Amino acid sequence: MIKALIGGKAYHEKRAIRVTVWNEYIAEKVNPEVAAVYPNGIHCAIAEGLAPYGFYIHTAVLEQPEHGLTPEVLNHTDVLIWWGHHAHTQVSDEVVERVYHKVLGGMGLIVLHSGHFSKLFGKLMGTTCQLKWREAKERERLWVVNPAHPITAGLGEYIELQEEEMYGEFFDIPAPDELIFIGWFQGGEVFRSGCTFYRRQGKIFYFQPGHETHPTYYHKQIIRVIANAVHWAASPHGASPVFGNTAALEQV
Amino acid sequence: MIKALIGGKAYHEKRAIRVTVWNEYIAEKVNPEVAAVYPNGIHCAIAEGLAPYGFYIHTAVLEQPEHGLTPEVLNHTDVLIWWGHHAHTQVSDEVVERVYHKVLGGMGLIVLHSGHFSKLFGKLMGTTCQLKWREAKERERLWVVNPAHPITAGLGEYIELQEEEMYGEFFDIPAPDELIFIGWFQGGEVFRSGCTFYRRQGKIFYFQPGHETHPTYYHKQIIRVIANAVHWAASPHGASPVFGNTAALEQV
Amino acid sequence: MIKALIGGKAYHEKRAIRVTVWNEYIAEKVNPEVAAVYPNGIHCAIAEGLAPYGFYIHTAVLEQPEHGLTPEVLNHTDVLIWWGHHAHTQVSDEVVERVYHKVLGGMGLIVLHSGHFSKLFGKLMGTTCQLKWREAKERERLWVVNPAHPITAGLGEYIELQEEEMYGEFFDIPAPDELIFIGWFQGGEVFRSGCTFYRRQGKIFYFQPGHETHPTYYHKQIIRVIANAVHWAASPHGASPVFGNTAALEQV
Amino acid sequence: MIKALIGGKAYHEKRAIRVTVWNEYIAEKVNPEVAAVYPNGIHCAIAEGLAPYGFYIHTAVLEQPEHGLTPEVLNHTDVLIWWGHHAHTQVSDEVVERVYHKVLGGMGLIVLHSGHFSKLFGKLMGTTCQLKWREAKERERLWVVNPAHPITAGLGEYIELQEEEMYGEFFDIPAPDELIFIGWFQGGEVFRSGCTFYRRQGKIFYFQPGHETHPTYYHKQIIRVIANAVHWAASPHGASPVFGNTAALEQV
Repeated sequence: MIKALIGGKAYHEKRAIRVTVWNEYIAEKVNPEVAAVYPNGIHCAIAEGLAPYGFYIHTAVLEQPEHGLTPEVLNHTDVLIWWGHHAHTQVSDEVVERVYHKVLGGMGLIVLHSGHFSKLFGKLMGTTCQLKWREAKERERLWVVNPAHPITAGLGEYIELQEEEMYGEFFDIPAPDELIFIGWFQGGEVFRSGCTFYRRQGKIFYFQPGHETHPTYYHKQIIRVIANAVHWAASPHGASPVFGNTAALEQV
Repeated sequence: MIKALIGGKAYHEKRAIRVTVWNEYIAEKVNPEVAAVYPNGIHCAIAEGLAPYGFYIHTAVLEQPEHGLTPEVLNHTDVLIWWGHHAHTQVSDEVVERVYHKVLGGMGLIVLHSGHFSKLFGKLMGTTCQLKWREAKERERLWVVNPAHPITAGLGEYIELQEEEMYGEFFDIPAPDELIFIGWFQGGEVFRSGCTFYRRQGKIFYFQPGHETHPTYYHKQIIRVIANAVHWAASPHGASPVFGNTAALEQV
Repeated sequence: MIKALIGGKAYHEKRAIRVTVWNEYIAEKVNPEVAAVYPNGIHCAIAEGLAPYGFYIHTAVLEQPEHGLTPEVLNHTDVLIWWGHHAHTQVSDEVVERVYHKVLGGMGLIVLHSGHFSKLFGKLMGTTCQLKWREAKERERLWVVNPAHPITAGLGEYIELQEEEMYGEFFDIPAPDELIFIGWFQGGEVFRSGCTFYRRQGKIFYFQPGHETHPTYYHKQIIRVIANAVHWAASPHGASPVFGNTAALEQV
Repeated sequence: MIKALIGGKAYHEKRAIRVTVWNEYIAEKVNPEVAAVYPNGIHCAIAEGLAPYGFYIHTAVLEQPEHGLTPEVLNHTDVLIWWGHHAHTQVSDEVVERVYHKVLGGMGLIVLHSGHFSKLFGKLMGTTCQLKWREAKERERLWVVNPAHPITAGLGEYIELQEEEMYGEFFDIPAPDELIFIGWFQGGEVFRSGCTFYRRQGKIFYFQPGHETHPTYYHKQIIRVIANAVHWAASPHGASPVFGNTAALEQV
């Protein structure tokens, strides 16, 4: 059974989008600097941030059986949000395979920050997803480069973060289907910070901000982007394709 | 019957998407073969088809003052649907310019069939939008090639039309931002039949079916695609960009 | 006759593009119907077809040690052409990994026909690469939809093949970076038959025609496309990206 | 010295790419600050920079009859380079139309810096091509984001310019077919600084650097990018599409 994160007994299946926020939930427990920022874990900060948006929100973490991503949980998830950093290799191949096929089958996926190096994201991209990085508490400015896209609703021209980890190009991903944000970093780099990818019936959004030592997930506009992305990734999709040998539709 | 857009007291701004269906409305009045299929005009057939979807629907035609596309009408339009064929040159440049800027500013636009040759679509594409064509009442099959896209919701793998005008490649458009449908024609051609384009804050969908002598707009799945496209094109967009000279955000 | 790649003293590094044609080379030896069409193997038919184009051509097959794709061979390969069908699982993971990293590092890759299901292509795409198929000796017409692209040089509006295996949508690939050809099939299907993909420093072209029982690789225009794709995939690329921790370029 | 394009007996049609460098050539004559940087005009600086690359180079300027872009000149041009700023409106519509159709027909086009606001580029884009700007002699860093692309050959990870005019997002263009460079500016902005666009048979490259008061076109790597873009834009293209009414290829 899927329990409500935020106690909502009034959940209406047809109205609320069902979001599962997944976090490896390690640094928050072992690193006091991180615990000071996210005492209940990054997943709870994100879930609480998203609460006003009316989603049905569930959380799951690495240490749970099957990392909390059982078939039942995934069958009740419209959009999965993924945060991981230090323990990518501890995620079992079986769970990665299960989530991967859910995404291809239409479950939305939002990959945050260091999730770029997760097995799941790499498998969906087909590339190494390597990048440049630097922890220098520097300023970042996320510029909107596709203001027609629903992921940009409610934002201004850019989002400014006073402290973030730098992620810099070259980012080893395929060219995104839609480039939504470009990040400017004080130290001199740029980054394709908000990218969408379509994979079969699934919609994927990669969003760069969110290093564990910075209060990024308390920033209203960052949460707004994630909420927008939930709506976009949960928007309806087409029928499951049929593969394999097939009879002709016309006389051959 | 289609009620007027403006002044309707039953209109709830936050709930219903406001759709204006524009038609040149000529062939239906002068060509008995067309009148037999669309006695009240293509615009009314589309409007009636869309009625069950809960949009607030308005229609406008060429012969009205300002072609029915006054600033007031456009200010109350979330998505404009455009059908034209024989009278593209009769659409005034002033109205084209007005609608063009509305699209850049975030109004959704759905261009149907022979609307490919409208001044408006050509101006937004930057190309001639020429193509091959043939009126032979041949079979068409519209194949879904992006089943993640909301425009494909509720469809199967393809839509089959028993009679359509052939539109064939090369279609002189920029590569679409998203290719949704590819059309197969009995006579041996293919066509990029469903294409999306982002232009500043506006979302545009071109959809090929709908020759005036065929009952295409009575086909439930064709209407479903148009309704899906209305939802997609009306989805929220970002803020208006600021252009021109600007002060530095960082010390230079 | 195809000369060996390595040690050939006639090789001029600055002039000739070095092409390695890889084939699993199984059906030609066990299936008389295939042997009748390609008595020396598909790899030799392609190599002979490409001979007039002035490339330095090498061939390699599955049964060779390391499938003929040793580090030395790959180090002397600008563009790798891949044909496989029945023995995808027999290709060792080690060789797949080696070739994969060569592609990311800038080696061009042309994947033909049933190579869509190779481990290599799947790994680069991040999707399952499934599709519909039918062996009915039906007619195919490959329509050019990007006549600006160098892969289309020397062709007309389309290429017609009297007999091909049908490959139909939905083709489970990411949206290609460039869609070059759309295939029309007599039996009623369409296919994204010519697709390019950029992956880090590498350029990839997928080209659908070439079932082993049809004389497709003797067709001058099919060979022309492959030759064009060799030129495109071998065109220069940028420097190897640097990944990992990096110092700031500006004062932070 | 730049030799004339037409009638030059040293011209070898099959070997050298024919480049025409067009410049409005105004600021260099009226503004001493610009004249100090480009005493012979920006067109000559570019032409001299490109000289070692072996192109056959011609120049043309606004004040010439038909702005130096007669049908004969264009018929002998493989790639047109365009620099304009203060006199976009002085370019005749007739010449714009002529060049536009040449581009659609396969002539390569490289639009530099303030050429974003030329009639020609706007017509090809279908958008207003507006942007943010600032003249503050600030540092720019052009980051490569597609190292597979031939336009990046011979470069490192980025190009650094000590002084450039800032061009900032949002840049009102359609999403480019290929995004090659992202510009970082000292003052806090980013820009899609290197973009390719395919239009029918023509290839277009927009490249942002090159304000008239800075010595940008003497920078070896900037010239290298332009030379690479010439090669890319001059690469072969497909046949002219046929448009209009057409007979069926199969029995209907």
